[in-house]
Amino acid sequence: MAHLSIIGTGNMGQAIAALAGRGGHAVQLLGSDDAGVPITGDIVVLAVPYPAVRTVLAERGDALAGKVVVDITNPLDFETFDSLTVAADGSATEEIAAALPGSRVLKAFNTNFASTLASGSLGALTTTVLIAGDDTDAKADLAAVVDSGGLRALDAGSLKRARELEALGFLQITLAANEKVSWTGGLGVVA
Amino acid sequence: MAHLSIIGTGNMGQAIAALAGRGGHAVQLLGSDDAGVPITGDIVVLAVPYPAVRTVLAERGDALAGKVVVDITNPLDFETFDSLTVAADGSATEEIAAALPGSRVLKAFNTNFASTLASGSLGALTTTVLIAGDDTDAKADLAAVVDSGGLRALDAGSLKRARELEALGFLQITLAANEKVSWTGGLGVVA
Repeated sequence: MAHLSIIGTGNMGQAIAALAGRGGHAVQLLGSDDAGVPITGDIVVLAVPYPAVRTVLAERGDALAGKVVVDITNPLDFETFDSLTVAADGSATEEIAAALPGSRVLKAFNTNFASTLASGSLGALTTTVLIAGDDTDAKADLAAVVDSGGLRALDAGSLKRARELEALGFLQITLAANEKVSWTGGLGVVA
Repeated sequence: MAHLSIIGTGNMGQAIAALAGRGGHAVQLLGSDDAGVPITGDIVVLAVPYPAVRTVLAERGDALAGKVVVDITNPLDFETFDSLTVAADGSATEEIAAALPGSRVLKAFNTNFASTLASGSLGALTTTVLIAGDDTDAKADLAAVVDSGGLRALDAGSLKRARELEALGFLQITLAANEKVSWTGGLGVVA
């Protein structure tokens, strides 16, 4: 059994908490009022919008040392829906990894709309969670949580691939915002 | 009926020619020995690897003025499989558009493995061709060819979105090369 702490109680935080619960894992769900509550999990999911990550790292950074930290953000410019707000040759995840040298940082869940995490399906497909990171054990730990909750985890490669996952998440959001796909649809993985 | 000229007789060129043929369109398929043969189509598909585009543009650039030009490339570093070879904030398609100011340039087909163009399906899904470009009429003309061939075309946005389509194509190739998905699978679109 894994022990997850999820920081953020929005749609994504709730959907990931439910997923972990379905798999029989312990879940601590922390909201913005819980800044004083110690993190108990070994896998910490930063389920907050990208602009809020900086605050979480300032408040919680020291407590994240030694832990697996999961970045789920899509760092879009939500004013224009026309670009990401991170360096063109980088990613939010690489920024977070640089700020947390004592943590093992992963990218995951940013290519999944919350509804597809909750339902476990994307049309006729089983929802697949793409996971990128440099630590193989950390990826396996998170993949076990995803698989046990009835979804499918897929290793998308090294931390550097977070850049492509953010591009995919960005594209998918623009497709949904422009009504080319629904918020229960999107980009899925066929084995 | 549209008239397509396809430059490149590899797997992708053949699959796109077959797709257009199924839809009842006229197709001219040009190989590397056909440099002297005039282009007859109104929609010209550059179905060559990214490094060969430069040669095609040098030989054929003037003849592409006034035409819809479709870039299908995935400009990967095939030595490392770890990066793209275009500017981090750009795309192969934007490079080609800059070199062909008299053409209407689209990105398409780079997120489709050839087998899924030939079969028309990606697992349980109908193969979806994502098309990016700034010219709405050009996108509609190509979409009509795709749809008439039994596949599904989806407008992925402006030419700037070619960057995200190239990231998606890159990610998909790394997943297949690492045997995380098959070359008949990959990333599909669920409406």
